[in-house]
Amino acid sequence: MLDQTTTTAAPVNADRLKAMMDGVTVFGAGSGGAMTRLTLSREDGAARDWLKAWFADHGFTHKFDGMGNQFGLLEAAGAGAPTVMVGSHLDSQPNGGCFDGTLGVISACEAVVAVTEALKKRGSASRVNFTVVNWTNEEGARFQPSLLGSSVFAGSAELDWALDRKDGAGISVREALADIGYAGNDHVPIPDALIELHIEGAEALDREGRKFGAFTRYWGATKYRLAFLGRQAHTGPTPMAERRDALLAGAYLIADLKAMAGDYGLDLHTSVGRLEVFPNSPNTVPAEAVLFIELRAAAPDILAEAEARMLADVDKAATRAGVGHEVRFIDRRIAGAFSPGLIRLADEVSLSLGETMRRLDTIGGHDAVAMSAACPAVVLAVRSRGGVIHHPTEFTSIEDQAFGTQVIADMLYRIATEGLDTVIGEEART
Amino acid sequence: MLDQTTTTAAPVNADRLKAMMDGVTVFGAGSGGAMTRLTLSREDGAARDWLKAWFADHGFTHKFDGMGNQFGLLEAAGAGAPTVMVGSHLDSQPNGGCFDGTLGVISACEAVVAVTEALKKRGSASRVNFTVVNWTNEEGARFQPSLLGSSVFAGSAELDWALDRKDGAGISVREALADIGYAGNDHVPIPDALIELHIEGAEALDREGRKFGAFTRYWGATKYRLAFLGRQAHTGPTPMAERRDALLAGAYLIADLKAMAGDYGLDLHTSVGRLEVFPNSPNTVPAEAVLFIELRAAAPDILAEAEARMLADVDKAATRAGVGHEVRFIDRRIAGAFSPGLIRLADEVSLSLGETMRRLDTIGGHDAVAMSAACPAVVLAVRSRGGVIHHPTEFTSIEDQAFGTQVIADMLYRIATEGLDTVIGEEART
Repeated sequence: MLDQTTTTAAPVNADRLKAMMDGVTVFGAGSGGAMTRLTLSREDGAARDWLKAWFADHGFTHKFDGMGNQFGLLEAAGAGAPTVMVGSHLDSQPNGGCFDGTLGVISACEAVVAVTEALKKRGSASRVNFTVVNWTNEEGARFQPSLLGSSVFAGSAELDWALDRKDGAGISVREALADIGYAGNDHVPIPDALIELHIEGAEALDREGRKFGAFTRYWGATKYRLAFLGRQAHTGPTPMAERRDALLAGAYLIADLKAMAGDYGLDLHTSVGRLEVFPNSPNTVPAEAVLFIELRAAAPDILAEAEARMLADVDKAATRAGVGHEVRFIDRRIAGAFSPGLIRLADEVSLSLGETMRRLDTIGGHDAVAMSAACPAVVLAVRSRGGVIHHPTEFTSIEDQAFGTQVIADMLYRIATEGLDTVIGEEART
Repeated sequence: MLDQTTTTAAPVNADRLKAMMDGVTVFGAGSGGAMTRLTLSREDGAARDWLKAWFADHGFTHKFDGMGNQFGLLEAAGAGAPTVMVGSHLDSQPNGGCFDGTLGVISACEAVVAVTEALKKRGSASRVNFTVVNWTNEEGARFQPSLLGSSVFAGSAELDWALDRKDGAGISVREALADIGYAGNDHVPIPDALIELHIEGAEALDREGRKFGAFTRYWGATKYRLAFLGRQAHTGPTPMAERRDALLAGAYLIADLKAMAGDYGLDLHTSVGRLEVFPNSPNTVPAEAVLFIELRAAAPDILAEAEARMLADVDKAATRAGVGHEVRFIDRRIAGAFSPGLIRLADEVSLSLGETMRRLDTIGGHDAVAMSAACPAVVLAVRSRGGVIHHPTEFTSIEDQAFGTQVIADMLYRIATEGLDTVIGEEART
């Protein structure tokens, strides 16, 4: 499937990759390309069982930890050797697409198989072990915050705290894990490197007609769960002047946040993606409106300034609507950079496969962002048509999927044969 | 319990009234005075069963129609005589209060019992029959529109259409009725007059230190269920300029509606009490925002002008946010006046009991508004503390409850002994 002029040491099998993508996509698929596989749902449980069976069929040891993070371990080098972890997440947004996350897990499976096949064919030993991973609740759609499984694994969030997070129906992560049989207690150590493949989720690659990139930096994010607190009253007789409408304050703030982003050009993203209204009855003035606010920026000073401006806007909106407010939850993700060694390796491999790698920023969170606090990590990107993500029409061709998978396989092959430190340099694990 | 200088022909029993209010309030009561008895819920079913048992214990014939409207018929005069219907609704808002609706049903029970006791004591015949009613889905909290049961009964809405209305979870009225065993098929004819007692739900009475009033006019209402249609996308990478955020359009409109009400002083009420966001995930740009909009005015020209302005604001908000929109449902309630004869009778009775009746407008809907299209009807009002309604702190003292009940009893007694036409004049049934 690759151009004949390119060289690969560990060829991946696109047909096998496609069959695996089709196989796992059964769980949660809707019409028109839609995927609804909320984390720890029945559909997610079925997809996990599918992966567990795949691990068993291909000689991987299946483990899952207290967060339900699912691992397939392949001891290619034996105990004590460094481990390279590869993977992403099988959970999706509600009514999302079929490639976000899923491609990263499936391509990891295919890449590791391709590398072990190549090593075996040449009779070469591996200097590293491999682990395929499927992280719990990357999306943050059902439980907040996002990146929950990888954050606990990386040590930046507490297990008990994470297990106590509740979804909109009041079900905790702990209960949801038990429901689908993935409340585990396996211990899996922090790997020595982590590689994740993902669809781009923006249109830089697609617009420029390029098929491959690597995220070199990740934006910071400040996420607020903010409640405006009004007073429940009848929408009929209650005089307008006496209403304390929590939703009205929310409306003012949503408009303010949009306007604020405009002041920063391309350097700030703001959103309110989720809004909970209580009691949410057509003829009752809302007593409570809970806004799930996100501010994202590459520059820490812009992010801090935007947060301060937002808090001033919150006060203004509350005063104008005559309501109170309270901050329910804050989640901060610091901006940073991925592993220079892994980026350089991806660049070399991509070039050897005939493609120049595009350097990208990632604005959305990825499990590799959480993991980069604990070990060298990188997110590689294949183009998504029109930059679409979190939507049923999200699409990456099988050729592009296979290319991204091939880059991983060749990276793993070089690491396996030359050694991790040799290939990526002496990046310290923290 | 009434002042000794006042006269009543059919004294009501405040202790009995209180015991009944306490009895039925068990079903759906929460802490701090809260009542959550959504129509056709399990709690509503239990309250209905309680009322059914009360009817059986007091010689009333229990009937319920295709909408689950619940009736207790007392043939005091025999077949062919006119019927006076009295009652309100047992359903509540989510986290609402214990008096809205419930007082109207329970006071009807007590008033009819007091009248029949008085007639019996004096050996007088009744010229009319009595029916106590509990209407289905007055509140419109679970199913829209509100006044659903009374509107079908009055002939202004179709039964099948009403049964097909669905709640937020997709459950139809038809299914919900079957679930609690109140899918009926009894035929109950349109009565010759209808009297409803309700808490005021505004503070005119309480502010003026008066305990009793009658609504003489009802405001018109125009209710829209309006959807803004954007495009689902990731709140991270998607450039701000490319977002099609349905919730942002909703926010613009909510602010516009509030501003518009300000332009009309006290003559226009506007609200968005319910907002449904899809997919409502923190890191997904909302694809859909459904606003439940209400415009209310006494003057038809103001209501029409407000609707036209709102539709222009909808266009503006959609354009500004780069989204589409569609109207999903419109409900119009025409402004009007209640029965002059019943208002005059209430005035006379109130005066004989030592209170001057305050004439009020009702802005909120009442089942008697729907019924006034079919027969002479009126809503009487007792004060609610601070004008509070649709809130757990909603409160009417037992003395005030008993006063309102006494007015109904004396009205019924005069109708029973003098005849309906004699007392209220020749108001035609339509």
